[in-house]
Amino acid sequence: MPSEFDIIRQYFTLKQNRSDVILGVGDDAAILDISKHPQQQLVQSTDTLIAGVHFPEDTSAQDIAYKALAVNLSDMAAMGAEPAWFTLAITLPDDNPEWLKAFSESLAAISAKYNLQLIGGDTTRGAFLSLSITISGFVAENKALTRSKAKVGDSVYVSGTLGDAALALAAWRKECLIANEYSEYLYQRLNRPTPQVELGLLLRDYATSCIDVSDGLIADLGHITEQSAVGASVVFENIPLSEAFNSSLTDNALKAPLVLAGGDDYELCFTVSKSKQDKFNQLIKEKNLLVTCIGEIESHTGVRCSLNNQDIDILEPGYNHFEN
Amino acid sequence: MPSEFDIIRQYFTLKQNRSDVILGVGDDAAILDISKHPQQQLVQSTDTLIAGVHFPEDTSAQDIAYKALAVNLSDMAAMGAEPAWFTLAITLPDDNPEWLKAFSESLAAISAKYNLQLIGGDTTRGAFLSLSITISGFVAENKALTRSKAKVGDSVYVSGTLGDAALALAAWRKECLIANEYSEYLYQRLNRPTPQVELGLLLRDYATSCIDVSDGLIADLGHITEQSAVGASVVFENIPLSEAFNSSLTDNALKAPLVLAGGDDYELCFTVSKSKQDKFNQLIKEKNLLVTCIGEIESHTGVRCSLNNQDIDILEPGYNHFEN
Repeated sequence: MPSEFDIIRQYFTLKQNRSDVILGVGDDAAILDISKHPQQQLVQSTDTLIAGVHFPEDTSAQDIAYKALAVNLSDMAAMGAEPAWFTLAITLPDDNPEWLKAFSESLAAISAKYNLQLIGGDTTRGAFLSLSITISGFVAENKALTRSKAKVGDSVYVSGTLGDAALALAAWRKECLIANEYSEYLYQRLNRPTPQVELGLLLRDYATSCIDVSDGLIADLGHITEQSAVGASVVFENIPLSEAFNSSLTDNALKAPLVLAGGDDYELCFTVSKSKQDKFNQLIKEKNLLVTCIGEIESHTGVRCSLNNQDIDILEPGYNHFEN
Repeated sequence: MPSEFDIIRQYFTLKQNRSDVILGVGDDAAILDISKHPQQQLVQSTDTLIAGVHFPEDTSAQDIAYKALAVNLSDMAAMGAEPAWFTLAITLPDDNPEWLKAFSESLAAISAKYNLQLIGGDTTRGAFLSLSITISGFVAENKALTRSKAKVGDSVYVSGTLGDAALALAAWRKECLIANEYSEYLYQRLNRPTPQVELGLLLRDYATSCIDVSDGLIADLGHITEQSAVGASVVFENIPLSEAFNSSLTDNALKAPLVLAGGDDYELCFTVSKSKQDKFNQLIKEKNLLVTCIGEIESHTGVRCSLNNQDIDILEPGYNHFEN
C-alpha cells in the first residue's frame, strides 16, 4: 500500500503556476508572497464534502474533484474575490490508484482553469471519503461583497437558473423521473456547477450584498436578510427556471420546494440599490449575463415568496447539511 | 436537533481579538487585512485529526480541541512563523451539547493563549469525528525555516524529550505498563503536546532547516535529509529522554522504536551551521532552553543512528498515518 508521502508526491504535487506561491506542497507549510497583492485583502473560506451527504456515493472521481473545488470557488465568487490557492484535506477509504489518478487530474484541470494552485494539505485514512478545502483569494480593500449590507428598496437578483441540481438529486434518489433528453444537462448542474467567479468580480461595483445559493434560495437569502436586519419578498414567477426543469416538472407545487429550498445551485443571489439599478441592467444587457431580478428588500423580517399574488408557506427553509 | 447554523452560532463564534481580522465566522468567507503585515510572508498549513487514528477515541473534548490546534501550531513553529488565524472543518457523529461546549471552550482557551483567531469553517455530520484545521501565520520575508537547506557539517538538534507520546500511546493500547507516578505526565505529553512556537521564532536567525517531529525522528529528519540532498547521523545516547520515559523503560531495545519512530512528539528537529553553533549554544544557555545536539549532517544518503558506536537497524521509518 502506498504511504501518505507517496500519495502526496504522486498525485498531489501539481504544477506550480502562480508567482505568489514561494513554496507549495511538501514542507511543514506553504509560503505565500502577499506583497504581490498590494491594497488587497485576503479572503479565506472552508467547505467540506462528504460522500453520501454532499454528493451521491457513485459520483465519479472527476466530478468529486470538480465539485469540491467548485463549491469553494463559489464562496470566493460570493465575496467578489479572485481565487488564488487552496489546501486539501482528504480522507480516503482506500488507495485505489485509478481513482486517485482521475481525481488529481480533474483537480489539476479545474485549478488551471481558475489560475488556482494547490499549496498543501493532509492525506488520511477513514471509513468514508471526505474532502475539506480551504480556499484563499484576494479582493481590493473594502470591496468585498458581504451578507450584511442589503438595504430596504434594493432589488434582489439571482444568476442562472435555480432548482436544476435539486431536481437531478431527486431523480438520482428515484423520487421523480426526468426525461432522457434532459438527464445529462441536469446531472451536470448537480455534479459540475459553474462557480460564478467572473460575475462576482463584476458585482463588486454594483451589489450591496451577495451570497451563493448552496443551501437553497430562501435559506441563503434569509442569511442576507438576517445579517442585514431587513426582509425580502420574492415573486416565484420571476425566478428563472431552465427548460429542462420546466419540462420535467409542470406543477408549481412540485417545483416550489426544489426551487426555493433545494440546495447545490451555486448561483449567486445578490442585491442592487435603486440608484445603481439602471446602470446594472445596462451592464447585464451589454455583457449578455443571465441574471434576473426576482424581488425586493423590504422592512419586514424574513423572506416571503408569492405565487399568483399569494404568499407561499415555506415549510422547509433550506437544505441543512447537518440534518441530512 | 440543532442545525449547522445554530452550532456555528452557539459554539464557533469565538471572541474576535485580532485587528487584522476584518470579518470572521458567519459570511461566505473571512476577510483578512494583510496590509497589517508589511514585509512579511503568509505561511499556511493543514492538518487533519481523526478519532481512532490520530487520538484514542476516549480522548476528552478538551484534549481533542487542544491537540487539533497544537499540531497545527507546531507546523507554524517548524516554519518559524507567528500564528494568526485558522479555519476549522469539523465532522461530528452526533450533536452532544456538553461535548460541543467543552470542545469550543478549550478551542477558545488555546486560541487566546497564542493570539490566534477562528475565522471560519464548516460543520458537517459523519460516522466518526474528524477535524481539519487550516492555520495561517506570518514570517518576515525570506526568513521562513524549511526542510531543504541543511548542509553537510551542520549540527542536528531536537527540542524537549522524545518518545513520551509514543510511550503513552503504547500504554493506552496496553502494550506496556507505565508507573502511576508518571502516568499523568506521559498522557499530557500525548494529549497536550506543547507547540514550540517561541523556539521556532528564535530559530529563524540560527537554523538552516527545521521540521516538527510528528511522524517520528527518523522519518522527519529523513524529510530534511531528502529535501536537502544530504544525510544525517544521530547518536542514540545523545537523544534527550524524560525521567518518566527512562523510568518506564530501561532496555534500549525497547526504547529505540518509540524514540526513533514514535510520532506525536511535536518537538522541533533542526540543523545549525558550524559558524553559528557557538552563538546558538550561548543563546540556549542564556534562555535556559531544553534543546540538545544529537548528531550531524553528513554527505551519505538517509538517516543513520548509532548506539554503542554501532548502527541501529531502523526497521520502521516513522509513523505513517495512512498505514495505521
